[in-house]
Amino acid sequence: MKIDVHGHMSAPDAFYAWKAGLLAHRGSHGMRPPAISDDQLRDSYFSPHPSFGNISHIEHLTGAGIDLQLLSPRPYQAMHSEKPTKIVEAFTAESNNLIKRAVDLFPGQFKGIAGLPQSPDLTPEQWLPELRRAVNELGFVGVMLNTDPYEGTEIPLALGDPYWYPVFEAAIELDIPILLHSAGCKAPTREPYSLHFIQEETVSVWSLLDSNVLEKYPELNIIVSHGGGAIPYQVGRFLPSIARSGVSYIDKLRKLWFDSCLYTQDSLELLFKVVGTDRVLFGSEKPGTGSQIDPATGRWFDDIHLLIDDIDWLTDEQRDQLFESNARSIFRL
Amino acid sequence: MKIDVHGHMSAPDAFYAWKAGLLAHRGSHGMRPPAISDDQLRDSYFSPHPSFGNISHIEHLTGAGIDLQLLSPRPYQAMHSEKPTKIVEAFTAESNNLIKRAVDLFPGQFKGIAGLPQSPDLTPEQWLPELRRAVNELGFVGVMLNTDPYEGTEIPLALGDPYWYPVFEAAIELDIPILLHSAGCKAPTREPYSLHFIQEETVSVWSLLDSNVLEKYPELNIIVSHGGGAIPYQVGRFLPSIARSGVSYIDKLRKLWFDSCLYTQDSLELLFKVVGTDRVLFGSEKPGTGSQIDPATGRWFDDIHLLIDDIDWLTDEQRDQLFESNARSIFRL
Amino acid sequence: MKIDVHGHMSAPDAFYAWKAGLLAHRGSHGMRPPAISDDQLRDSYFSPHPSFGNISHIEHLTGAGIDLQLLSPRPYQAMHSEKPTKIVEAFTAESNNLIKRAVDLFPGQFKGIAGLPQSPDLTPEQWLPELRRAVNELGFVGVMLNTDPYEGTEIPLALGDPYWYPVFEAAIELDIPILLHSAGCKAPTREPYSLHFIQEETVSVWSLLDSNVLEKYPELNIIVSHGGGAIPYQVGRFLPSIARSGVSYIDKLRKLWFDSCLYTQDSLELLFKVVGTDRVLFGSEKPGTGSQIDPATGRWFDDIHLLIDDIDWLTDEQRDQLFESNARSIFRL
Amino acid sequence: MKIDVHGHMSAPDAFYAWKAGLLAHRGSHGMRPPAISDDQLRDSYFSPHPSFGNISHIEHLTGAGIDLQLLSPRPYQAMHSEKPTKIVEAFTAESNNLIKRAVDLFPGQFKGIAGLPQSPDLTPEQWLPELRRAVNELGFVGVMLNTDPYEGTEIPLALGDPYWYPVFEAAIELDIPILLHSAGCKAPTREPYSLHFIQEETVSVWSLLDSNVLEKYPELNIIVSHGGGAIPYQVGRFLPSIARSGVSYIDKLRKLWFDSCLYTQDSLELLFKVVGTDRVLFGSEKPGTGSQIDPATGRWFDDIHLLIDDIDWLTDEQRDQLFESNARSIFRL
Amino acid sequence: MKIDVHGHMSAPDAFYAWKAGLLAHRGSHGMRPPAISDDQLRDSYFSPHPSFGNISHIEHLTGAGIDLQLLSPRPYQAMHSEKPTKIVEAFTAESNNLIKRAVDLFPGQFKGIAGLPQSPDLTPEQWLPELRRAVNELGFVGVMLNTDPYEGTEIPLALGDPYWYPVFEAAIELDIPILLHSAGCKAPTREPYSLHFIQEETVSVWSLLDSNVLEKYPELNIIVSHGGGAIPYQVGRFLPSIARSGVSYIDKLRKLWFDSCLYTQDSLELLFKVVGTDRVLFGSEKPGTGSQIDPATGRWFDDIHLLIDDIDWLTDEQRDQLFESNARSIFRL
Amino acid sequence: MKIDVHGHMSAPDAFYAWKAGLLAHRGSHGMRPPAISDDQLRDSYFSPHPSFGNISHIEHLTGAGIDLQLLSPRPYQAMHSEKPTKIVEAFTAESNNLIKRAVDLFPGQFKGIAGLPQSPDLTPEQWLPELRRAVNELGFVGVMLNTDPYEGTEIPLALGDPYWYPVFEAAIELDIPILLHSAGCKAPTREPYSLHFIQEETVSVWSLLDSNVLEKYPELNIIVSHGGGAIPYQVGRFLPSIARSGVSYIDKLRKLWFDSCLYTQDSLELLFKVVGTDRVLFGSEKPGTGSQIDPATGRWFDDIHLLIDDIDWLTDEQRDQLFESNARSIFRL
Repeated sequence: MKIDVHGHMSAPDAFYAWKAGLLAHRGSHGMRPPAISDDQLRDSYFSPHPSFGNISHIEHLTGAGIDLQLLSPRPYQAMHSEKPTKIVEAFTAESNNLIKRAVDLFPGQFKGIAGLPQSPDLTPEQWLPELRRAVNELGFVGVMLNTDPYEGTEIPLALGDPYWYPVFEAAIELDIPILLHSAGCKAPTREPYSLHFIQEETVSVWSLLDSNVLEKYPELNIIVSHGGGAIPYQVGRFLPSIARSGVSYIDKLRKLWFDSCLYTQDSLELLFKVVGTDRVLFGSEKPGTGSQIDPATGRWFDDIHLLIDDIDWLTDEQRDQLFESNARSIFRL
Repeated sequence: MKIDVHGHMSAPDAFYAWKAGLLAHRGSHGMRPPAISDDQLRDSYFSPHPSFGNISHIEHLTGAGIDLQLLSPRPYQAMHSEKPTKIVEAFTAESNNLIKRAVDLFPGQFKGIAGLPQSPDLTPEQWLPELRRAVNELGFVGVMLNTDPYEGTEIPLALGDPYWYPVFEAAIELDIPILLHSAGCKAPTREPYSLHFIQEETVSVWSLLDSNVLEKYPELNIIVSHGGGAIPYQVGRFLPSIARSGVSYIDKLRKLWFDSCLYTQDSLELLFKVVGTDRVLFGSEKPGTGSQIDPATGRWFDDIHLLIDDIDWLTDEQRDQLFESNARSIFRL
Repeated sequence: MKIDVHGHMSAPDAFYAWKAGLLAHRGSHGMRPPAISDDQLRDSYFSPHPSFGNISHIEHLTGAGIDLQLLSPRPYQAMHSEKPTKIVEAFTAESNNLIKRAVDLFPGQFKGIAGLPQSPDLTPEQWLPELRRAVNELGFVGVMLNTDPYEGTEIPLALGDPYWYPVFEAAIELDIPILLHSAGCKAPTREPYSLHFIQEETVSVWSLLDSNVLEKYPELNIIVSHGGGAIPYQVGRFLPSIARSGVSYIDKLRKLWFDSCLYTQDSLELLFKVVGTDRVLFGSEKPGTGSQIDPATGRWFDDIHLLIDDIDWLTDEQRDQLFESNARSIFRL
Repeated sequence: MKIDVHGHMSAPDAFYAWKAGLLAHRGSHGMRPPAISDDQLRDSYFSPHPSFGNISHIEHLTGAGIDLQLLSPRPYQAMHSEKPTKIVEAFTAESNNLIKRAVDLFPGQFKGIAGLPQSPDLTPEQWLPELRRAVNELGFVGVMLNTDPYEGTEIPLALGDPYWYPVFEAAIELDIPILLHSAGCKAPTREPYSLHFIQEETVSVWSLLDSNVLEKYPELNIIVSHGGGAIPYQVGRFLPSIARSGVSYIDKLRKLWFDSCLYTQDSLELLFKVVGTDRVLFGSEKPGTGSQIDPATGRWFDDIHLLIDDIDWLTDEQRDQLFESNARSIFRL
Repeated sequence: MKIDVHGHMSAPDAFYAWKAGLLAHRGSHGMRPPAISDDQLRDSYFSPHPSFGNISHIEHLTGAGIDLQLLSPRPYQAMHSEKPTKIVEAFTAESNNLIKRAVDLFPGQFKGIAGLPQSPDLTPEQWLPELRRAVNELGFVGVMLNTDPYEGTEIPLALGDPYWYPVFEAAIELDIPILLHSAGCKAPTREPYSLHFIQEETVSVWSLLDSNVLEKYPELNIIVSHGGGAIPYQVGRFLPSIARSGVSYIDKLRKLWFDSCLYTQDSLELLFKVVGTDRVLFGSEKPGTGSQIDPATGRWFDDIHLLIDDIDWLTDEQRDQLFESNARSIFRL
Repeated sequence: MKIDVHGHMSAPDAFYAWKAGLLAHRGSHGMRPPAISDDQLRDSYFSPHPSFGNISHIEHLTGAGIDLQLLSPRPYQAMHSEKPTKIVEAFTAESNNLIKRAVDLFPGQFKGIAGLPQSPDLTPEQWLPELRRAVNELGFVGVMLNTDPYEGTEIPLALGDPYWYPVFEAAIELDIPILLHSAGCKAPTREPYSLHFIQEETVSVWSLLDSNVLEKYPELNIIVSHGGGAIPYQVGRFLPSIARSGVSYIDKLRKLWFDSCLYTQDSLELLFKVVGTDRVLFGSEKPGTGSQIDPATGRWFDDIHLLIDDIDWLTDEQRDQLFESNARSIFRL
């Protein structure tokens, strides 16, 4: 069985046209979402996407043999930094609602990972009612956390800061893992959102391991998206810290989880060697950035399962960890 | 014949979903607009709109007997203050393109009024290539000018400031009128965009008349939307200035044009009395804010032509000025 | 009998020279006001003013047949945004003191409306001791509230915000109406103070009606100066909101009061028709902005009572409401 | 003969009431100064001032035996930091005009020192037309320079910076000395204007001597008010610099001039010893801060000439330098 | 016996190289100070300093006959404004530790005055644990207080503000005097740190005397460094305040203490005359700014004791006050 | 032969104590560097460093068999963001001078790579005289470029921006490669300098490849430190861009050079596979962050040559490229 922990929702244009409206009227037309029929919603999963290689979300999953995908909101659309907060709250809630409807429309195919209304004008405590609703009422199994609610417009507090404790504590209380995944990225930051993801993951891993969060909250399951940013590759820089702390940096790193959203076999091998397959979860981000055919191979760039299949030194147990058992364990599937 | 100088484009959801994407990826996916077929575009004018009283754009026009509507981009969607400038430029250009396509799809029904890519990070000179394209290549007959490119996030320079001269000079060179109409409105400003329109018109009229713009550019035709903001109602405050300047404020005011986008007969009468029907152009903003049925009368709130019809003291010549000849004169129709 | 609810104090030069000193030494010379004799003060009401058409304050009132004028501080002089707060407090208190002395010097001619020391560096609660002093010790019958204590230098919180509740609650407790009237206006705002009044009134009415203040404080009597800014003229924009709220915007508007400080008959007629004469109070702002002779008519521009007299469709009862009974009712005269 | 180089203008209340108006309407009423008659102006010099010990400006001069006083605008009233610039320009010009009228009204008693419209929003070059007018048209003999045009709201460029060169060059061209004297002082600066004078003088002397201004402009005559701030007292800190520069700090200091506006004999003696009486000009600032009777001695605190008289070690030549010949030399009297 | 209350620590290069490291790595290498041996530390007091006239700290003291010097951290090195706070705390603590070690290495020669970790990002309460450690554990006898923790980058609250009360209260509780002495000075401030000392002292004395601190805390002993900035020289400006407050400014001034760190006899005489020798403590700041030979006299500029010796009008009792008894009294020596 | 392109200078404490002084007095003591004798300087290369595993710089090189090391300033000490610019200029010049002296003291062992005085208050053109001095007068063979002159305090312009062209053009003109290496890192940035290096390299590679710099300047040789930040590991994210640009991202990447400063064999293998050994230069950063003994292996963490030796699939030609020929080629050795 193949569980993909890193998938993002599909939605019809009406949903994003509504979002464009929220950003234009800033809530003065009210926040009522558009009426999207089940057919329209189903269609957004069954229609070929021009930006995703002209096949549909479902075809992507079927083609890759993904049995279950954990669906979260599409991060770069999250608009956490927009004002007033009520439009962030409305858009987040409706994103979660549409995920729930997809879970119901495609039985067994999806489970939900909740987005949070992470406006920097709200306190982290104020993000949590939506999380509780998503888990307790909608049955979601995880939460996605954006480490930069400012989306590049200010420097946020690093993930080791007590600012973030309420989210950690809620995740423990609700017994769900946290998927670290930043959102949009605006000026003055220099990088596009896609690179911002990587930069945020790098600094977040560093900050968590530099803090005592993982000691304070040992039951916390944090999954770092996209293979951990730069850290597994640059891990050598941190190894000498053993002299100061007496603890191996690799051991610290292995308190976190990582997904496999890397698109080259070399990188996947590096990741598996550095943190171990017992700390990596299969994630494809399908359909998404990598949903193009590689002209050199004829494969989809995001056919990460094929790259893993090609690694000849993995044992069956390791493959099972990657594709199924790690995910079952922390998502309580 | 009834010419409506104040109408805004319709577009399918795909257009606004594209806009939502631009605001999410900030241009990193490229700026290519979605492929919108003629059928889709036509459909956006023929389908009932839930926010416009559940009838279509075309039905609104037909119902009101509007023979020709001048179409401009929908102002609250203009996103002039968003960064980087390239997304403002792309969205503005595609807005103008869709207007041009509507002009062609509905022969005789529409003419275009151009939107400008009014990013505050560009100079006014940098807004003008799009204006020249719209007039010279697309055949547009006017230009819409947003007096607050910051959309509420900073205080812009007032309209009498030399900052705006390049736009005035281009309008004269291209022999087109300027429709003053602000766009969106964000924090920290207190008012919603719809009230921001009014506030901007008020301060813009004041600033133009306080400056020497109209003396410097006597051939300039500036139309103030929504009946001139607060000015015709508050005009008494400015009358004593005759003592200082020797010029009647009413005479100065009558160098400007005003549209009739007011939704009560009393206000229309006031406007006509203050500035004269020879300075007012019929504008309905249909479909738009006023596209609701008044439960008390059964009329559409934006059936402004009915309100004008009800004013018994207007002569036929005055009605002709309002509905046709003034527009023909300054738009060269 | 003719009651004018909108008049501003006169004062001798020594008072404003003292103010110039406060702004120059910022309190380091102490805050003791100048000794102004009764004769000097009386003289400031009896002497012709060069900026008010060269007749005196009293002549203005007599000429207009105003029996009782409610005197408030001259708003554009209020200097609420100046620092340190102690100079705002001293100047406000002395303004109120001089009003009280005028009330006493001209028995029956005046009643006081209190200014507040509305420094943005003080909390609204800190403005209230002066209000209590003015009402309880000086016998004032109303309070003037500046909706923009920053005087154009920053965007203030809108009037529907809980920030303002302490003032509303004090007004109810003291059983006095609130006269909305902004003060000075500095850079970076584009408009002169006189237009700022109008802009502030427009946004304040919008904000109050968009909030639940009038439902929360049903006994609150708020008078919007200058005929309500742009709102009565632009009221059509808000009428469609009945579809969303089920409440007529006109009904909401009629929970407020308006003064008649408009200088054209057309505008007065519009105001009376939109909100009803039972919600309008005669206000002349005499002597003030309109205290010039209209060369076309020979009348004073601010002879608003003549404009009202000229409206032939008003009943005697309506005239009584405007000139006397409305004011008696809410000011408890 | 006794020449006092440091006196500030007197003016009637009407002048300062006009200033209060400028600060309230920010120029929107126009900038026309009030009509002040010769009698009113003369009266402001002949009437007892309550804040100056209840005797008049002229009595102060006569009492101290001052034959000629150089009159400059009253610095703490200068309002250089106020916006828009046109009110600074109007107020400065009228200050200079009133000085000129006083010079004419009291023949032989006064000469003028010009104020400059030192708005930080203008360039120093833009301050100079008023200087040229004052010297060439009004016959003024010096110029007062405020080293902090921001009046405490921002940190200005120090006096050694090329920013100030245009003023230095104009002074040389017009052959007049510069009297350094700062103006008002607002938040966030901690000190009152009177202490700000001292702080500005201290840092200005330091900056001039740290720069090459005095080498670059050897013919420049700069008079530091109030005895040079802290410098003569703290001069010992700077003496070791001889090791680095090879030049005695005292020699550098003696390229500047200092006035005697100190109110204790000990301080005057210190000043004379440090810089030499050939570099000090008698200045009384009468009437001003020191115009109070000392209860211990019965003398006016600002009877600086008496303190000088009491210094027994001064020669007649030195007394002549202080009271007359130094001033004659640099002011070309 | 000669007690010098104003001396600053010496330290080997390793200490300042460590500081350079803290400023480079901002604490990411840890905050462990370098191992400095007793020999290295002793050597820093016994080696000739190139910037202090090429003789050693101890030679300076011996040469001047100083029996006991109170050692504080070298102020311009304090780096209070640097971030993060932990590097300020570490550097301050180690400064105090090195002072304590010097006290122990040179028995009888030194006593300690504590530096505080005055980061503006900490509250004054958070500065106090280090003060208590220094007094209670290290045996220090006083505390140095920097009145500008921002070091020129922002305007701090003046010393009369309640912000500073916790430090005053701790000094009283611990029964130690406070030596006012500012630290570094960065842009945008115009002055170098050495002049910043003087400016800060001037404004601090003014603020203390303008506030009620000395009435509220009568047992507080505050020593103003460098002879009180500009105040004793400019004291005449403040004398007229007796008219307003009824209290002699000199009497107020004499509630403070002053050190003798002035380098000219004239200034010392002025200081003694203004505040009295019973309020002045001998301070040499040796070795420091003044540690150069005066080419004119062959004396060290900072041989302040010689300047005092040269003042012929001082009595033996006064000399004893200056050199010994005042210090014994307030430092409890 | 083994050429190490990534080594940083050693220096005695006196050099860093001088730097601490510059940061304390901000240039007011002058900028003269301390006299460091040849013996002191040589000693700093021959003495065991406590933070570098207690062996000396030279022992590190000898132990690793490094024949030639290219020495650049120690980046985290660069203090580019400090003010005023003159202290940055003085410190940079002296850093380069000490490198030149080391080159001369250890013949054949070192060559110099120049630091630039990259104050953000200077233009890039103003950084170049020091570069020309270093190359033309000191014989340096390369230049180190900090991509974040603000050191974390503001967001700099990305490396593809024309802002950086003058440096690129000077490097071409002088025929030297550019070593990208950021410097210190201060608040508000969240990461320590060591991680900042990685983040800056990631965004710089992205920006260069997103711009047309490498097409515009084909002869430019840019070496990205630390194995290219996150890019080689995350390269899969960028591969789909081939669909848009038609160019393989790997081909674009191979226009850059990379050093081998990674401390794990897996990472080195990844780097070699992704960009090819013909684009990688051996760099050890010895002595530095990795100069600790790995308790697990007994090797120095920064014995990168051993990690390379352990890669069994490298050919002799590839080893020669890495250790010698690539460096010879671009550094013209």
